[in-house]
Amino acid sequence: MDFSTLYAKRALQLERSAIAALKDEAKAVPGILSLGEGVPAPELFPVDELSHVAAQVFKAEGRDVLQYGDSLGGFGLRQHLSQIMTKYGIQISPDAIQVTSGSMQSLDMAARLFLETGDTVLVEDPTFIDAKNCLTMTGATLKGIPCDDEGMDLDLLAKALQEDSSIKAVYVIPDYQNPTGLCWSDQRRRQFMELVSQYNVIILEDNPYGEITYTGEYHKALASYDTKGQVLFMGSLSKTLSPGLRIGWVATQQTIITQLSLVKECADIHSSLPDHAIAAGFMNIYSYDDHVSSMNKVYKERRDTLVKGLQNKLPDFTFTVPEGGFFLWLALPAGLNEYEFFQYAIKAGVLAIPGTPFFVKPQKQGFVRLNFTGLKPDELTEAVSRLADAYQNMIK
Amino acid sequence: MDFSTLYAKRALQLERSAIAALKDEAKAVPGILSLGEGVPAPELFPVDELSHVAAQVFKAEGRDVLQYGDSLGGFGLRQHLSQIMTKYGIQISPDAIQVTSGSMQSLDMAARLFLETGDTVLVEDPTFIDAKNCLTMTGATLKGIPCDDEGMDLDLLAKALQEDSSIKAVYVIPDYQNPTGLCWSDQRRRQFMELVSQYNVIILEDNPYGEITYTGEYHKALASYDTKGQVLFMGSLSKTLSPGLRIGWVATQQTIITQLSLVKECADIHSSLPDHAIAAGFMNIYSYDDHVSSMNKVYKERRDTLVKGLQNKLPDFTFTVPEGGFFLWLALPAGLNEYEFFQYAIKAGVLAIPGTPFFVKPQKQGFVRLNFTGLKPDELTEAVSRLADAYQNMIK
Repeated sequence: MDFSTLYAKRALQLERSAIAALKDEAKAVPGILSLGEGVPAPELFPVDELSHVAAQVFKAEGRDVLQYGDSLGGFGLRQHLSQIMTKYGIQISPDAIQVTSGSMQSLDMAARLFLETGDTVLVEDPTFIDAKNCLTMTGATLKGIPCDDEGMDLDLLAKALQEDSSIKAVYVIPDYQNPTGLCWSDQRRRQFMELVSQYNVIILEDNPYGEITYTGEYHKALASYDTKGQVLFMGSLSKTLSPGLRIGWVATQQTIITQLSLVKECADIHSSLPDHAIAAGFMNIYSYDDHVSSMNKVYKERRDTLVKGLQNKLPDFTFTVPEGGFFLWLALPAGLNEYEFFQYAIKAGVLAIPGTPFFVKPQKQGFVRLNFTGLKPDELTEAVSRLADAYQNMIK
Repeated sequence: MDFSTLYAKRALQLERSAIAALKDEAKAVPGILSLGEGVPAPELFPVDELSHVAAQVFKAEGRDVLQYGDSLGGFGLRQHLSQIMTKYGIQISPDAIQVTSGSMQSLDMAARLFLETGDTVLVEDPTFIDAKNCLTMTGATLKGIPCDDEGMDLDLLAKALQEDSSIKAVYVIPDYQNPTGLCWSDQRRRQFMELVSQYNVIILEDNPYGEITYTGEYHKALASYDTKGQVLFMGSLSKTLSPGLRIGWVATQQTIITQLSLVKECADIHSSLPDHAIAAGFMNIYSYDDHVSSMNKVYKERRDTLVKGLQNKLPDFTFTVPEGGFFLWLALPAGLNEYEFFQYAIKAGVLAIPGTPFFVKPQKQGFVRLNFTGLKPDELTEAVSRLADAYQNMIK
């Protein structure tokens, strides 16, 4: 008997992402090179260090971390996270930090706390594809606001905020966004906060990539310009330490954290405390900052390899060089369809993700998203050659 | 500015549990003995073994488990979980198992998958207090069905199912329930499944305590009598291995697992893969079954100590001896108020949780819930003496 007729409406809105299906299609191709994933380089994981720390943590703190504990997460870890946030110009107490199971859960919990049917949430257009699923799961409606190279278009944002009283939240990724790789300018950040501070709306600031910087600079977070307590800053260790450990966090004003921790208790009581202690232990013994900078050095080389390859081999394609993060957003020559390009690319042995699914209202937009952190330089060079082959085959 | 006016209705339904407040009140009392927590004994955690396994896991599998992975959870762990389920008479493929961050997340995800405003969910009355929060977070309405010593009252259940077409799910804990400690008889399980199989309702079978047995017997799960694929079985390693690791799972028919994994991706992509590998590694190297039986031996002694103490020192109180699990449900002498008893008890230096908050519509019911796994035998003996003192002070 098919009990799937009993699904809640919210769960029926969830469809397996178009990207997942494309990835599966590509996986079947032998020897394919993937620019499609958004993954850190596994060879950079500090496995020996974490092995050492993990053994220590279970031996020394086992009775504590294996037990039920604080729903906010391990205190030692929250102290380190509070320290990391100073890089973004934010001073916050460890008690105003809710540790989550990755940035994804931060967004899911924040969405469940604030959004419901009848609410509208504004997002950058295009935006993080999983965020679309997660936000609409609440029953809220998504509206996309386009961005330029400096960030969200403030005229369009102002117009939306003025005209639509159902807007309850704005979800943005100002630092090296997924999928575009773009980073908001400091001026745009300040102006954005000035504008939204005139409205009773929550700002969901997702920042999983802020530490992956190729200029060595950190940008001041939107939260650092927050005078009213309306920003929920969402950080993550997935891109810097490990996605598998699933460590993210939400930092915001204390009242909101208190209510958010009730959502957390409902969701899973608390996240894995051994993992929190292992991450904190790593930061106690080794230099997290050194780990991140040596990681960034490797990623910068990969970014440069990709950029150089594209400039040489695909001069008809255009893009902005990403100054951080995992992605490059490639514009196809006018009139070219990115799904068709995807098909030619997998035939040539390379996976590049069509940009369409990242838009709020999918239209053929002529973009593909390229990840450059998961492949080594020689693989990236080869991948670009294959993209060039694909392009040649497509237009001939 | 107070942005808490923007909370979604669902999130406003969450109130800090009455139990949490009572626990805080008790914590302030120096030297208090707690029968209030529902925790495993930390001295039984296999910390040396886990320390060894954790070091191995990071060293040997670090590149895999630190990366993003399968949203269903680690395959090695799912194989072990599938094996554990045979004890309950269930044959299930590891691919029909969704690993979650503890039983709490299993319930939260199942609730999000099926329940919404307008739906009714039936629960045992009394039931697990956190389940009430979690189920109502979906917008669904809870209705309590009383139980006797053998399980849910089937006449009342039949009546409810016949009369109320908004019933979409029934949530039950047939094995050593929290808070009552009661275990459904095999006959009641069979009859329950016969009855519900006549209706299009989902059965949420929560089983975190099934392996904590003091008779050495396992009961066949409701899911083992399921002929239509309507049961979601929810298991947990929190009571047997570690709550801190946060490992639970949902097992059900493949179609439902597929949709459930989309909810999981929205919720947190997947749970901690290192933790899955550590739990699986423990089960590979050491005997999980031996660990559970030696744990049960210790808990049985504690149960016996509590039972003997209550029989000797509080003969006016009545209870059914729990044959497994963590809790004993103590009925106060007629006319006695359990909140008043709670106050006398903390004055005497012992924490016992009033039963009222576990009921769907809280009424003064004259019960307290006692946990016996978190204290050592001499502490339990002392705790019962203090309860007896509290009772004497109360009635004098």
